Amino acid sequence: MKKLINDPEDVVDEMLDGMEVAYPDRLRRLDGTNVMVREDAPVDGKVAIVSGGGSGHEPTHAGYIGDGMLDGAAAGEVFTSPTADELSEMIQATDSGEGVLCVVKNYEGDVMNFETAAEMAEMEGVEDVEQVVVNDDVAVEDSLYTSGRRGVAGTILVHKVAGAAANRGDDLEEVARLAEKMIDNVRTMGTALTSCVTPEKGEPTFDLGDDEIELGIGIHGEPGTERVDIMPADEIAEELTGQVIEDLDPDAGQEVVTIVNGMGGTPLMELFVLNRKVQALMDEHDLEVWDAMVGDYMTSLDMMGASITVATVDDELKELLAAEADTPALKR
Amino acid sequence: MKKLINDPEDVVDEMLDGMEVAYPDRLRRLDGTNVMVREDAPVDGKVAIVSGGGSGHEPTHAGYIGDGMLDGAAAGEVFTSPTADELSEMIQATDSGEGVLCVVKNYEGDVMNFETAAEMAEMEGVEDVEQVVVNDDVAVEDSLYTSGRRGVAGTILVHKVAGAAANRGDDLEEVARLAEKMIDNVRTMGTALTSCVTPEKGEPTFDLGDDEIELGIGIHGEPGTERVDIMPADEIAEELTGQVIEDLDPDAGQEVVTIVNGMGGTPLMELFVLNRKVQALMDEHDLEVWDAMVGDYMTSLDMMGASITVATVDDELKELLAAEADTPALKR
Repeated sequence: MKKLINDPEDVVDEMLDGMEVAYPDRLRRLDGTNVMVREDAPVDGKVAIVSGGGSGHEPTHAGYIGDGMLDGAAAGEVFTSPTADELSEMIQATDSGEGVLCVVKNYEGDVMNFETAAEMAEMEGVEDVEQVVVNDDVAVEDSLYTSGRRGVAGTILVHKVAGAAANRGDDLEEVARLAEKMIDNVRTMGTALTSCVTPEKGEPTFDLGDDEIELGIGIHGEPGTERVDIMPADEIAEELTGQVIEDLDPDAGQEVVTIVNGMGGTPLMELFVLNRKVQALMDEHDLEVWDAMVGDYMTSLDMMGASITVATVDDELKELLAAEADTPALKR
Repeated sequence: MKKLINDPEDVVDEMLDGMEVAYPDRLRRLDGTNVMVREDAPVDGKVAIVSGGGSGHEPTHAGYIGDGMLDGAAAGEVFTSPTADELSEMIQATDSGEGVLCVVKNYEGDVMNFETAAEMAEMEGVEDVEQVVVNDDVAVEDSLYTSGRRGVAGTILVHKVAGAAANRGDDLEEVARLAEKMIDNVRTMGTALTSCVTPEKGEPTFDLGDDEIELGIGIHGEPGTERVDIMPADEIAEELTGQVIEDLDPDAGQEVVTIVNGMGGTPLMELFVLNRKVQALMDEHDLEVWDAMVGDYMTSLDMMGASITVATVDDELKELLAAEADTPALKR
């Protein structure tokens, strides 16, 4: 295993320390936890937006903490849910009295621990905690870690919409409605050229031949739904985009946001090659691209590969997606 | 070789197409060239800042095109200098009459072609073209591709300083002076855990054992200056930072900018682990960190590894580094 780490057991703790000293004016780590919050949390007069999940998906989630997106993010160990205790501490530390919306990726451990945490926080005096569950991955209905679909790169758009709605003063019910609307409108599918290597295990989590790729991968090192021979980028784009569009079933002329998301080990050069074809496919499907995002938003450690997200947007969602945001990983 | 590409011969062309459709309001590709310019180039009343070099370092350089940074960037084939013809076209397309500053990384082909291009552009009516050469890599005095030191991740700071100075209306002579000052103040050193794989060659450009890393690598797949056993991240940080600081020789109490730069295949998690130690080392050296940047700024395709940059800054440079910038890869 070749990684720029020290003891594998310390990797999450040391990563969070390294984030905090990179953004000391923005981020604050809650003492004795793996929870990061806005430096100025709780922010008065605003619904708080929080998220969290296993580590290994950086910049998700703590990279999206800041004005217009998240108030807090809890990091579990690599590919492991944060504990309910820590999630509850995060909810309490970010609540200003206006309530807290938890944006949860659909993995059983995450959903369960956020539910428990909400109950714990309410017992500690937080009046209102709501939860929305992101399930944008069209590849599988149930997986190793989920019942129902997994939450993957589309989560970023949910952070953005919820954060912007909270920032302009919407109440918790309205913020949750808008987050749910974004979730209903977004679909994703990914491919892996290589497995990732977790620090703890030190070897690939699945084996893939030199001329094979996996379609329909998740973000936790779980294998995909189909193993195929490696194809040119344009064919991969067609395959992934085709399944996303088929499931999303948008009207002709519909405005969309696309995300070409790198899985962590993929050069930006390749993401742009993929984006070229994705944009051509949007044109073929008579979809109007309102925003095309390209980059590493939701990763899987050092995995080579990418996911393609398509989301339909209307005026209500566009206003929120375009609103100012100032976070380490996304600025608008 | 596993890459998200089509024909290796088309990779730069298709990447540039993929960039242009990602940012249609920001970037414009000059017809029949691999030159990208600001959509609104030339910008009236402002010195133009341009750069360029071989592809494979994305987001460098075209990712830094935009308000407050670059007006244009020329992409050569992978790890190959752009032609003088294309560089001349870029200079002509971005000049508003206030002159053009070329920010060149110190590689023989780049320096020579930019010099030729400046002469060509001046014959075509561009009144004033200046060139600054970035040489921040402390690893080697001469290398496979350079006489003198190589230009690496510190180049980003030179783009920022020159772009901000041009934006506030400084004339060409003053913009060049400030860019030179930034160059004088910045040092970098990198390490590779793996070689990169170029699309054309399809295999690693150097071999590295499972338990070996290279210190003092460049960004063109050239091997480093020293091959050592893999070390914990903290020791790697000490080794790289130590050499950078020794060469920079800053005064105690000096303010600095640090960059922990990923080489393309390194997860962000590992860059933050490295940054944790880099910031501790700044403290040990009694240096005051004014800004800590962490991310993929100057890459080498899919290479796993990182570089560490330290730059001393004073009020004049800080004002320019803090000024607003709005580019795909860097916003302030």
